[in-house]
Amino acid sequence: MPLPPEFHDIAKRVNNWGRWGDADEAGTLNLITDDVVRAAAATIQSGRRVPLALPLKQDGVQTGTIPGRVNPLHTMTFINLEMFGPDTVATSDDAVTLGLQAGTHWDALAHVSHSGTLYNGRPAASITPHTRAAHGGIDRVGPLVSRGVLLDIARAHGTERLSDGHAITPDDLERAEEQQGVRVQAGDIVLVRTGWIQHYLAGDRGSYGNMPAPGLSLHTPEFFHARDAAAVATDTLGLEVLPPEIDSLWLPVHALHLVEMGLLQGQNWNLEGLSEACAAEGRYAFFLTATPEPFTGGTGAPVAPVAVL
Amino acid sequence: MPLPPEFHDIAKRVNNWGRWGDADEAGTLNLITDDVVRAAAATIQSGRRVPLALPLKQDGVQTGTIPGRVNPLHTMTFINLEMFGPDTVATSDDAVTLGLQAGTHWDALAHVSHSGTLYNGRPAASITPHTRAAHGGIDRVGPLVSRGVLLDIARAHGTERLSDGHAITPDDLERAEEQQGVRVQAGDIVLVRTGWIQHYLAGDRGSYGNMPAPGLSLHTPEFFHARDAAAVATDTLGLEVLPPEIDSLWLPVHALHLVEMGLLQGQNWNLEGLSEACAAEGRYAFFLTATPEPFTGGTGAPVAPVAVL
Amino acid sequence: MPLPPEFHDIAKRVNNWGRWGDADEAGTLNLITDDVVRAAAATIQSGRRVPLALPLKQDGVQTGTIPGRVNPLHTMTFINLEMFGPDTVATSDDAVTLGLQAGTHWDALAHVSHSGTLYNGRPAASITPHTRAAHGGIDRVGPLVSRGVLLDIARAHGTERLSDGHAITPDDLERAEEQQGVRVQAGDIVLVRTGWIQHYLAGDRGSYGNMPAPGLSLHTPEFFHARDAAAVATDTLGLEVLPPEIDSLWLPVHALHLVEMGLLQGQNWNLEGLSEACAAEGRYAFFLTATPEPFTGGTGAPVAPVAVL
Amino acid sequence: MPLPPEFHDIAKRVNNWGRWGDADEAGTLNLITDDVVRAAAATIQSGRRVPLALPLKQDGVQTGTIPGRVNPLHTMTFINLEMFGPDTVATSDDAVTLGLQAGTHWDALAHVSHSGTLYNGRPAASITPHTRAAHGGIDRVGPLVSRGVLLDIARAHGTERLSDGHAITPDDLERAEEQQGVRVQAGDIVLVRTGWIQHYLAGDRGSYGNMPAPGLSLHTPEFFHARDAAAVATDTLGLEVLPPEIDSLWLPVHALHLVEMGLLQGQNWNLEGLSEACAAEGRYAFFLTATPEPFTGGTGAPVAPVAVL
Repeated sequence: MPLPPEFHDIAKRVNNWGRWGDADEAGTLNLITDDVVRAAAATIQSGRRVPLALPLKQDGVQTGTIPGRVNPLHTMTFINLEMFGPDTVATSDDAVTLGLQAGTHWDALAHVSHSGTLYNGRPAASITPHTRAAHGGIDRVGPLVSRGVLLDIARAHGTERLSDGHAITPDDLERAEEQQGVRVQAGDIVLVRTGWIQHYLAGDRGSYGNMPAPGLSLHTPEFFHARDAAAVATDTLGLEVLPPEIDSLWLPVHALHLVEMGLLQGQNWNLEGLSEACAAEGRYAFFLTATPEPFTGGTGAPVAPVAVL
Repeated sequence: MPLPPEFHDIAKRVNNWGRWGDADEAGTLNLITDDVVRAAAATIQSGRRVPLALPLKQDGVQTGTIPGRVNPLHTMTFINLEMFGPDTVATSDDAVTLGLQAGTHWDALAHVSHSGTLYNGRPAASITPHTRAAHGGIDRVGPLVSRGVLLDIARAHGTERLSDGHAITPDDLERAEEQQGVRVQAGDIVLVRTGWIQHYLAGDRGSYGNMPAPGLSLHTPEFFHARDAAAVATDTLGLEVLPPEIDSLWLPVHALHLVEMGLLQGQNWNLEGLSEACAAEGRYAFFLTATPEPFTGGTGAPVAPVAVL
Repeated sequence: MPLPPEFHDIAKRVNNWGRWGDADEAGTLNLITDDVVRAAAATIQSGRRVPLALPLKQDGVQTGTIPGRVNPLHTMTFINLEMFGPDTVATSDDAVTLGLQAGTHWDALAHVSHSGTLYNGRPAASITPHTRAAHGGIDRVGPLVSRGVLLDIARAHGTERLSDGHAITPDDLERAEEQQGVRVQAGDIVLVRTGWIQHYLAGDRGSYGNMPAPGLSLHTPEFFHARDAAAVATDTLGLEVLPPEIDSLWLPVHALHLVEMGLLQGQNWNLEGLSEACAAEGRYAFFLTATPEPFTGGTGAPVAPVAVL
Repeated sequence: MPLPPEFHDIAKRVNNWGRWGDADEAGTLNLITDDVVRAAAATIQSGRRVPLALPLKQDGVQTGTIPGRVNPLHTMTFINLEMFGPDTVATSDDAVTLGLQAGTHWDALAHVSHSGTLYNGRPAASITPHTRAAHGGIDRVGPLVSRGVLLDIARAHGTERLSDGHAITPDDLERAEEQQGVRVQAGDIVLVRTGWIQHYLAGDRGSYGNMPAPGLSLHTPEFFHARDAAAVATDTLGLEVLPPEIDSLWLPVHALHLVEMGLLQGQNWNLEGLSEACAAEGRYAFFLTATPEPFTGGTGAPVAPVAVL
């Protein structure tokens, strides 16, 4: 048993294997039914649209600590090229190289394995260089819209941003719900705001990307499981609190979400504008659209989420 | 006067320069107001979600004819790597290189210039290798949701897909409106279906990507201008009919849309499932979410559009 | 026993495992001693230099049949940028994405495995996405110069280029030696010319890269083993004759060279100019410099070889 | 006159425009004649081979200060893939993205312009995104071998490495010649050792890549011109002393070498092993092979140079 008993105790309580059939690769996204979508549509009241993605550019959030997770290298392949002769219509094109998890992204379920296993018992070995993620890849997400709920933990704590190493607990989440007058329901996409991304927005990639950083406690998956959330995203690079709460148990929230629950999770979401918009409108539920780019077999993908209030 | 009089005649009639101010870089997206978004939300009735993006993979639609517009090269940077020691949680990551216009994408306004000029009179020379598109880049699009309207030209013609070189006229568009019981309004995103993408879906990249191919006639921009459409996309690689209707006047629709009107346009959208869904529900207007990946200064970007019915 | 007895019979005769110690990763390159290099230097007589690499450009030899082996995507990152202010010195920079085996290249010993094993008995599983080739990578080649010998099989057959599917036999190699007045010795790098690359040079990538194509017979490794050649390269994409001589025994020469012998092999070498130079000078041995780009853990690498006559 | 008079004074004295004809794009490489190559061959005495390239890997010398000059992102496209069925020969392939000037490289003449002009009076505007360097590109270098001469300035100063901001003068170069018993001749490739690369080899990219750093004084081009050197390389990232000797005159040596003289220059060469080898053999001239990868229109390219003693 490679991981400690504390992990396995929680894992047992939140495990969704087989819940949507043995062949399921969508996990908690199954909770987003047509009814959920219709109800989400009803939250559109002002028509205000808030973008949640960071700009994709070479000066992105990555600092080189995760090998291969490179910021976008974006170059022009031609500029104002008159392909059809002089004084004709001219076109410009560009190309890019980037880590699929480099910017604002979703982790696919296949992003994490433990004990040789992916979500729903698929073998971790089903990921290979040429097939990439044959199971649980980001292409299995499909069209993703639902009700979004912002749990603005920083605001609920009366602070601009959470302090280093703050482990966000289920209590924190519930306190935010109460203060904000919202309750997470089945099929919701939950956005948990720490304010930590202010470091990056102020030009300090080091403070943003390095440890210690605030994030989800290993107890929050039980909250999301109890509420049947469909997905979770934060405004941090690591999603969960880092360093971890239990010595040498790294990435337990990743493993609980992605492997045990089949719960999609996202990082590097810019929730600053949304925090202001929700406060201004006095409501924290909205229509959220967040379909990842469908890279076949991707273990993650860029997403340009939009909250529609 | 490099382009023929026919072009300039139409250009004068559809030109939007200065309409939203001299500094405007959003063009017809200004037509998507909060009211438009609220009305779009009201079209969500069944909750059905239809994805419109092609999978992003090396076996994509590009055939090498446009230099630098490469299909995605998607590779794993690590697989089930136990970064924190043996028998810990393992992660997999990936990276990709692709042309920003390689798959299902939006063209930014800066994608095309003529006579040295971009939309709203900006100099074409403002695009440089290191700034990329300083004006009219894809990052200026912002969060993009609105009412979507499918004009299913193939279905209106009673055919699976339009024939080679069919130039879709304003008459074609109006006929589809009538048959489908829908009318394009200010702020709509118009999806024009030819069925041509069936070639690619059947594995025939050559027939899909090469000329002749059906597409928009150079007279359609006047239709979109009259109706104040916010954006237009097709299920073809070239958007407009190819080869062009006027000898040696290549890409007139591109120039009218992007330079004269400031009208966002998209290509390689898979409208097959949407055609079936609209026919099944007997309605052709829906909520459309189609925010491009915000590459700073991009002259285009991948998008994973979703129609919500 | 996965591969047929014919393969294993030859494999036994040419196997070099343990010959240079159990830890060896250089294989037959061990045969290039200081003495061999000094003797190679003595072949420099005219001072004529002949380049053997194809240009690296997007219009390269790859046709998409080998997934991920992409032609170079070479873009400018900035052009005449005055980084230090107006009217100062300006610089231009560029970046590239390419398959390491896309153009003129060496295969590292780790490029091929069979029966789960690499050269010298290393486990094939030692190649992983994050370590890449931990053993037998292209970085183990080091500085590579030696005597080069051109065996101009096309010229020896009195033809411009060999016919489709011509399997070059040891007899062919010996006939070329005799006609050319040269004999392969220990430590030599042998360049075997078919003339096949003329297809590519004439703009016909399909004929160059697809089967059938001429190349080395599965009996030639015994010739190279008997003569203690240090490395072998051809002017073809596949090195060996394709389709193979024994039904369903694909890539036997690759396996014999790289796994059994530890013999470096190269492809897509342009030997046309060298053929003319050798004929003009009436001698077929020269100083050859062919150090691959030292990608750590690469299973191949571009090389810009030069023959110095 | 954008650049100060001091620059133009030197420029006049070292200018080679027209020296090898108005169409010349090879510059001082014209000085490497067949005779020079034959004489270089005669310097091979021991047969010892010393590699001068740094490994190409993600943990390379770049630190992100030069936009787009990215360290290699090297990934496996497939690993031990049995393309032709189970239990057949398996192959592994890889791909890479990197800045062409990221590691051990040559600058092409087109890498630098001043006053709108490249070497030999070509317009700087001849570099475009789609043609890249139409004139003076790295593909114009061709096969590059010659006599190499190491001027070991650190050793001549009795130090392990030069101090911060040491500007290497012609006196320094001559002192090294005298102490080492060697004299730079027409057609030589001169390698100037500072020892600065020890920072990188010790894992300290910051100290290696950032200013201040030792390098060539703006007076050294006159030395190279007087001696008719064919090319110059150093073991530093910037080649010349940084910050510059004259306030706000950045990169004067680049401009003198590449624009005025047409002198190829190289950076990030690892001269540590060569320093030891030359000291051990008591001689500082050798056969040098240093052909850049022939990227068509590249403004630089990786090179894997080898000194053969």
